Amino acid sequence: MQLDELQTLMDRLYGDADRARGIPATVAWLCEELGELAQAVRKGSVDEQLHELGDVLAWLASLANQLGLSLDDAVERYITDPP
Amino acid sequence: MQLDELQTLMDRLYGDADRARGIPATVAWLCEELGELAQAVRKGSVDEQLHELGDVLAWLASLANQLGLSLDDAVERYITDPP
Repeated sequence: MQLDELQTLMDRLYGDADRARGIPATVAWLCEELGELAQAVRKGSVDEQLHELGDVLAWLASLANQLGLSLDDAVERYITDPP
Repeated sequence: MQLDELQTLMDRLYGDADRARGIPATVAWLCEELGELAQAVRKGSVDEQLHELGDVLAWLASLANQLGLSLDDAVERYITDPP
């Protein structure tokens, strides 16, 4: 899947709810999901790790949507000038 | 960019260092980057937000690589059976 396709999908599924909830609540939820990913990596199954990876990526895409930013633009410097 | 292209790029750039550092250190670093993103969202410029979005996405891709998991597989359920 393309990064911009992911952002479009997230907007279609959750854009209205995300905008109603607001950016700080999305940041909070993203942090919660990262906590769940950290736990799955430490002691979860492969399926749980995959589930939580997907959730973190989905919330990151939703946050980018709310900020009006492109994940493609965000990773561009890893192509042109990697840190 | 495709999700799998991002994972391949991260592996090429950082795979050796990531594997030497180990998974728990990658989780710790990902958490640090998410904290930087949260700060940029709260009080940073658009460029800073874009920078930190890219870093979180990059570290998430590196973690997926270390776990031997595909970000495409991870978001598949948002296509087939969204929560």
